[in-house]
Amino acid sequence: MPRQITAFSNPLVKYARDLRDKRHRREARQFLAEGLRILTEAHETGRVPRYLFFAPASAQHPLVERLIVATESSGGEAIETTADILAKLSGKENPQAVVGVFDEFSVSLEMLDRGKSGIWLVAERLRDPGNLGTILRTGDAVGAGGLILIGDSVDPFSVEAVRASMGALFTVPVIRCDWSDFLGWLRAGPGTLVGLSLQTRHDYRAPAYPTPTFLLTGNEAQGLPEEYEAACDLLVKLPMLGKADSLNAAVATAVMAYQVLASQGG
Amino acid sequence: MPRQITAFSNPLVKYARDLRDKRHRREARQFLAEGLRILTEAHETGRVPRYLFFAPASAQHPLVERLIVATESSGGEAIETTADILAKLSGKENPQAVVGVFDEFSVSLEMLDRGKSGIWLVAERLRDPGNLGTILRTGDAVGAGGLILIGDSVDPFSVEAVRASMGALFTVPVIRCDWSDFLGWLRAGPGTLVGLSLQTRHDYRAPAYPTPTFLLTGNEAQGLPEEYEAACDLLVKLPMLGKADSLNAAVATAVMAYQVLASQGG
Repeated sequence: MPRQITAFSNPLVKYARDLRDKRHRREARQFLAEGLRILTEAHETGRVPRYLFFAPASAQHPLVERLIVATESSGGEAIETTADILAKLSGKENPQAVVGVFDEFSVSLEMLDRGKSGIWLVAERLRDPGNLGTILRTGDAVGAGGLILIGDSVDPFSVEAVRASMGALFTVPVIRCDWSDFLGWLRAGPGTLVGLSLQTRHDYRAPAYPTPTFLLTGNEAQGLPEEYEAACDLLVKLPMLGKADSLNAAVATAVMAYQVLASQGG
Repeated sequence: MPRQITAFSNPLVKYARDLRDKRHRREARQFLAEGLRILTEAHETGRVPRYLFFAPASAQHPLVERLIVATESSGGEAIETTADILAKLSGKENPQAVVGVFDEFSVSLEMLDRGKSGIWLVAERLRDPGNLGTILRTGDAVGAGGLILIGDSVDPFSVEAVRASMGALFTVPVIRCDWSDFLGWLRAGPGTLVGLSLQTRHDYRAPAYPTPTFLLTGNEAQGLPEEYEAACDLLVKLPMLGKADSLNAAVATAVMAYQVLASQGG
């Protein structure tokens, strides 16, 4: 039976609100996800919230009902609350019908089966949570095995990243590691490392991309460090016909990922 | 000779700050752009700010010097100010070295030469300024003739859109019009209208895309209305191998645009 919380001062509201902040997230090892679509996707992959906040008006919605049952039967708590509190939790004026507090989860390189997919995404020092979430969403669409985040990348559990991923945070494994661990793991098995670069004449459409291909995207402002480019089996570039010499990192990753998919007959 | 402004209460500072707000922008018909890279790109396309704000520390930078000269010689005003005021204008804690106030500009359908490019981007009711800017940046990279915004789309002169465009706002013509005006103009000359859709079996890689192709992207949440799909010469879809059934709008546009470019031998 859901309990009701209507006071902003309630400690659980404060706790959940604080999860928008990176420091609190790190301590609590929990994060926020919002919206019926994303929470339903999470549920379908077996992840239910520890705390599910919902507005009275949406309690009759069959998907919300299902989430309430799933949350309570897994030992979590469903909480009926006000639109104002939902707005505070989501940081949006027009809040979603549901906001969930989830346990963080993590995947290590050793847990990966690299034969599972022909495409793996690798990103280095991503700065923008929207880009991270968008890359996850693309990863879901192309059937990528996972997203490997190298070095000091933005937090995949941030509200903005979860939102931009449109639920792909729950369907695409995210691995955080450093460059040397990644290279060590990569070279211990099959895998072609392909870097996006401006320092090459190889057009991205020319190669046949072997299975599995690991697609390496660099930092938004600086691209890939030289050392990283040197470690790639192949560097390719996208045509740039305009005044600028670069694309948005999530866009470049997506164009490449769809090319790899096509090359592999996907 | 640049004048100095160090007071937050200065009316010009307030005026420029207010341009972050849509209503003020619409009244003033001016907008903000920030950062040396973007302002230099603007200058190279012949657009100089009415007001150029810069920090004393950056006044010796050759690109900043050039912008100061260009601004003053075109009748604009260069203003030396503080890092705090620059931060207030840009809305960022680490502000850019320069912030400019530019006159809005607009392009109408009648001004377009559709033979100028093989690819034109068309977007319908875009909601996210980051997506709009990212699509402009992609448009620059693929050499698109312009971006045609249909219906009630987000403002291309918003701070977020200008920032995400990385200067492409100044290099890629943006046209705002309604659907019937666009269709009337389109059908008065050569041009193939291609829509991205989930309601089709046509894979996006199969067709040869004629010159010029007009690539139509729908609203982020709802996709294209039926009526718009019915008006397309061709509907295509991208493979979706994951749990979700959609991509970020800017990502989908980019994957399509690069496919059209490749199909046209670009």
